[in-house]
Amino acid sequence: MIKVGIIGATGYAGAELVRLLSRHPQVEFGALTSQSYAGKLIWEVFPHLYGLVDDRLEELNLPELVANCDVIFTALPHGHAMPVAEAVWQQGKRLIDLGADFRLKDAAIYQSWYKTEHTAVDLLASAVYGLPELYRRQIKDSRIIANPGCYPTSAILGLAPLLTNRLINPESVIIDAKSGVSGAGRGLSLKTHFSETTGNFQAYGVATHRHTPEIEQELSMLAGVPLTVSFTPHLTPMVRGILSTMYAKLNQDMTTGEVLAIYRRFYEGERFVRVLPEGMLPSTKAVAGSNCCDIAVTVDTRTKRVIVLSAIDNLIKGAAGQAVQNLNVMLGLPEDTGLDFAGMYP
Amino acid sequence: MIKVGIIGATGYAGAELVRLLSRHPQVEFGALTSQSYAGKLIWEVFPHLYGLVDDRLEELNLPELVANCDVIFTALPHGHAMPVAEAVWQQGKRLIDLGADFRLKDAAIYQSWYKTEHTAVDLLASAVYGLPELYRRQIKDSRIIANPGCYPTSAILGLAPLLTNRLINPESVIIDAKSGVSGAGRGLSLKTHFSETTGNFQAYGVATHRHTPEIEQELSMLAGVPLTVSFTPHLTPMVRGILSTMYAKLNQDMTTGEVLAIYRRFYEGERFVRVLPEGMLPSTKAVAGSNCCDIAVTVDTRTKRVIVLSAIDNLIKGAAGQAVQNLNVMLGLPEDTGLDFAGMYP
Amino acid sequence: MIKVGIIGATGYAGAELVRLLSRHPQVEFGALTSQSYAGKLIWEVFPHLYGLVDDRLEELNLPELVANCDVIFTALPHGHAMPVAEAVWQQGKRLIDLGADFRLKDAAIYQSWYKTEHTAVDLLASAVYGLPELYRRQIKDSRIIANPGCYPTSAILGLAPLLTNRLINPESVIIDAKSGVSGAGRGLSLKTHFSETTGNFQAYGVATHRHTPEIEQELSMLAGVPLTVSFTPHLTPMVRGILSTMYAKLNQDMTTGEVLAIYRRFYEGERFVRVLPEGMLPSTKAVAGSNCCDIAVTVDTRTKRVIVLSAIDNLIKGAAGQAVQNLNVMLGLPEDTGLDFAGMYP
Amino acid sequence: MIKVGIIGATGYAGAELVRLLSRHPQVEFGALTSQSYAGKLIWEVFPHLYGLVDDRLEELNLPELVANCDVIFTALPHGHAMPVAEAVWQQGKRLIDLGADFRLKDAAIYQSWYKTEHTAVDLLASAVYGLPELYRRQIKDSRIIANPGCYPTSAILGLAPLLTNRLINPESVIIDAKSGVSGAGRGLSLKTHFSETTGNFQAYGVATHRHTPEIEQELSMLAGVPLTVSFTPHLTPMVRGILSTMYAKLNQDMTTGEVLAIYRRFYEGERFVRVLPEGMLPSTKAVAGSNCCDIAVTVDTRTKRVIVLSAIDNLIKGAAGQAVQNLNVMLGLPEDTGLDFAGMYP
Repeated sequence: MIKVGIIGATGYAGAELVRLLSRHPQVEFGALTSQSYAGKLIWEVFPHLYGLVDDRLEELNLPELVANCDVIFTALPHGHAMPVAEAVWQQGKRLIDLGADFRLKDAAIYQSWYKTEHTAVDLLASAVYGLPELYRRQIKDSRIIANPGCYPTSAILGLAPLLTNRLINPESVIIDAKSGVSGAGRGLSLKTHFSETTGNFQAYGVATHRHTPEIEQELSMLAGVPLTVSFTPHLTPMVRGILSTMYAKLNQDMTTGEVLAIYRRFYEGERFVRVLPEGMLPSTKAVAGSNCCDIAVTVDTRTKRVIVLSAIDNLIKGAAGQAVQNLNVMLGLPEDTGLDFAGMYP
Repeated sequence: MIKVGIIGATGYAGAELVRLLSRHPQVEFGALTSQSYAGKLIWEVFPHLYGLVDDRLEELNLPELVANCDVIFTALPHGHAMPVAEAVWQQGKRLIDLGADFRLKDAAIYQSWYKTEHTAVDLLASAVYGLPELYRRQIKDSRIIANPGCYPTSAILGLAPLLTNRLINPESVIIDAKSGVSGAGRGLSLKTHFSETTGNFQAYGVATHRHTPEIEQELSMLAGVPLTVSFTPHLTPMVRGILSTMYAKLNQDMTTGEVLAIYRRFYEGERFVRVLPEGMLPSTKAVAGSNCCDIAVTVDTRTKRVIVLSAIDNLIKGAAGQAVQNLNVMLGLPEDTGLDFAGMYP
Repeated sequence: MIKVGIIGATGYAGAELVRLLSRHPQVEFGALTSQSYAGKLIWEVFPHLYGLVDDRLEELNLPELVANCDVIFTALPHGHAMPVAEAVWQQGKRLIDLGADFRLKDAAIYQSWYKTEHTAVDLLASAVYGLPELYRRQIKDSRIIANPGCYPTSAILGLAPLLTNRLINPESVIIDAKSGVSGAGRGLSLKTHFSETTGNFQAYGVATHRHTPEIEQELSMLAGVPLTVSFTPHLTPMVRGILSTMYAKLNQDMTTGEVLAIYRRFYEGERFVRVLPEGMLPSTKAVAGSNCCDIAVTVDTRTKRVIVLSAIDNLIKGAAGQAVQNLNVMLGLPEDTGLDFAGMYP
Repeated sequence: MIKVGIIGATGYAGAELVRLLSRHPQVEFGALTSQSYAGKLIWEVFPHLYGLVDDRLEELNLPELVANCDVIFTALPHGHAMPVAEAVWQQGKRLIDLGADFRLKDAAIYQSWYKTEHTAVDLLASAVYGLPELYRRQIKDSRIIANPGCYPTSAILGLAPLLTNRLINPESVIIDAKSGVSGAGRGLSLKTHFSETTGNFQAYGVATHRHTPEIEQELSMLAGVPLTVSFTPHLTPMVRGILSTMYAKLNQDMTTGEVLAIYRRFYEGERFVRVLPEGMLPSTKAVAGSNCCDIAVTVDTRTKRVIVLSAIDNLIKGAAGQAVQNLNVMLGLPEDTGLDFAGMYP
């Protein structure tokens, strides 16, 4: 059994990790920490776990936790995973960070978008961007995994075949993304207050959202040239799910079928990316509760644009599920260990 | 491997059964039938199953299906399971009926509430009411299981300890139940049309709902005397879940703690009934996606009434999950085989 | 033009009052106060008012506000309207309090349920319970109106004809009430956090909710004898609306039609109480956005109980709309002035 | 009093028209027709109107209706308003068509997108596109008004200042639009079934939606050159509202403030277009229940794109409210007659 520690177990991503790992056959909990609820049993905070997980939440004792665990997960606001990474690194353990601290390879870009000093710059080169469909081999051998952001997961998986195969103009990419409210976390605010959010669809962070440089970094690498994108996130009155609608100019005339064939080849054998048959479109409900990313492609011959739709469950493939997938890759387990379930429908 | 057939695989209960059984380690599908979608692949009808279940839906060929399967599930409107039961019985197979045809022991009561002739009266005596927490031993040896209705599951589990222990006046029971809209099925109607249902809370079937005699039959048996109840179902603007609020007059002064102790004893060792600690109340979200029934009890000393709250996922413990639990009991498997997951939260 | 002041204009009831009164032909705003948002324009806090109401929110200066306004509305947590009432009384102005401070005639009961000292006991005898359908004449001449609670409005209107006409056993009354989340106000909490509340139905305040003594006071007066009730409020995943399901034992055999006839007579000529035709049931959606209370009655001959359903918009008939109705009664205006609109559907 | 007839009074747009016009001071109903519910009282179909509108729904008798009414509204599926228009035209009455039959000036384009023959081509030249903010003068004198589609209303109002002022590349326009489910009407389908739609965000009609040519026609006229757009509609799990997110390449460097100033000038004096202050973004909730269109603009200097957000209530400014606004323009009434209300929030 692998002993895991979860630092930040009572945010939504952390709690989802607890739920998933509590049924993972190779894992046991070394420690679950929570700043707000230390001392409580986890099910006092998350009632769905009553009778299933009986661990008590603790305050973080970093040296002890790292010493005691084989793999450490951090599900913390940005800036808080850096000291953990240092400790993990020094003690030869492994870290999967669900936050933003190790996603950007360039500390200057991190600092300019996150307005936070990066205090573990020396570790950036050792960190691997934890998108298994693209970086499986690197993840296997890495000790610091930067679990991707929810929006970037949907955008990068959606656009990778186009850019890798040089099918589109890299400067033409527009990503219009819509997320369920759980993406905003468990922290209280009017933006996530039931009466304000129900029946309410709205954009936020227009032209300023912090997932922009993360998307641009990864897409630029795939394209082989630096590119910028327009990325607009929206809040949708539902709990789980992201749907990203992406637009780009095709470099040449192609049919939907031709583009789809390229996608199918690109994702062949991938358990968690489902390239949908022509005529079927993704929906957040079809992936909610699962670790799948559903993708559809449409070529609009009138405008010579390709429109890509990709859907994920933001808390699973966009956070905790992908973290478990990364853990499985690291441990050499079948990638769907503990993740082999269908979404919940309806 | 046990070969199962599901007759009516594309209603919500049927599809949930497909989802659950597709991950059950001891089961394989013999046949999935659908009147509306015969000829299609199941994932063309339920997109969450894409890549996970590849079975093709068929029209029902009853003799062949029964011959070919060990256990048959029916998830059909009332009246349609009777001929299936006859065929199953004759061929020595086993039936778990998610509909109403074998729940009422008295055919006359069935006919008066369901306005349908009962054509398999001879089999009624062989049918067992499939509430494992009450009838585990009988289920094990039975060949016809009447899987309980969703409302009755929540009501009976909520009231059983009170009536069995003669703590309340049997004529004082009021059950005010609230269900998510998935309980109304996948059939189209204005009552289940998104724009009419969202933001809308309403009662229906006041004093006439067909689950009333089922509840009364089971509560009367527990009480040892015939009783009638007031049962009012309501439609709640959410997809999954039932919460029943139940009121009854206590026969003697008791504290909440005393009543709770009786509940804990009654459900000791039950994996799927969670008697909540004092101060914690059930909610549909805490059980959604799980096979659990959560129960809380409050004694109101001002009115000398006891108020019981019980919550289930109507499609799981209220339908497909309970059916799998019954299957496990029948087969002598651990009762949580294929059901060992927490609910999804948030 | 009547000059009105609203103390507490940025809670949901206060903001709804601003919306309604901004279109009232006989009213202008003297002052809108807000503790949290003083200094801001009202539409910076409530974007639907942009371009329609340009008033600036102020901190409360009680003497000045009272001197400057003809009618003062308080939409404050309990305990805060008492000093306002004293000032209003002394200066000969009129108060409509949307909070709880003047609803209970017995200060001892107030103190025991609200855990707050009542500091304006001398004014209690002058206060009138502002349910126009019952107390229209007294409201007209009063200077302190205690605007009823949202749950009590639906419960009292629903039960008044039965108790006034001595049709039921007064000790048998059970009120199972379901409210939209806006009833919990604009204050932030996990209970009203979108991701926790969506898809979640739950009870709260079981046997302890503060609207209980208010309901009991009014029902006792109608019945002519002191009575207690079981009252259970529930939180429903929708924004607006209350549906109360009420149960009582009939004193004699009656048909639904006979009871309905009594209701029709009782509410004859009432603009805002709609006794529905037999066969039609109330729903929160049919009243959302309106000042109506919809009522239906069903006699269950099996159990000899009558089941009453009543629905309101908690923020309108249950708060701000009823306050405007009270204002109209006070001023001798047609009762639907500024309230003559249908609900919004769907 | 003006006598109006509504043909198709029991779809959502028709019913909203009934609600709005029932409070319009200059209007009385000549006839309300319904194919599905002829013979019923309107409130038997729409319970919010109980006690407020008592008209009986009739089958359409076209000659009689036209003879009897001054202004006729059609709220019908495409193809059904043409014969009505012929009759209205011949009898010298006026028509406001909420459907698509008279929006496209080119019958060939109509036929190619709607797969329906246009049988009133002779009247197309007399029809005016009923967007009062752009065509107020023509509407005043016209006898056939083509009330704009819901998506086009939000898109055209959002982009008009940019195109009229030649600020953007006309070939760069992308419109990513999100609608509440009421836009799909009252007709039953799995797409609008509560359990399928709740918690579900999805695109539909990708590159094929029929509002595309309508948007292109109007934007081309504003731009002075023919243009094509990418238009992707999405279904959002809420009842009312459209938010359109629009992207275009700026022809020159500009600041958000500069663009906003142009918008403010363009919409100066418009009662129903609210150009939001910098830093404030539209949301569907802020306009739900009102006839307003809220607009915000952001310049992204990194990508040299301008991002425009515009929000409307699809049933009001996107349908029935705009029809009433057109009626007011036609009749020379203040444009907000019967429309002078704030949205409902929360």
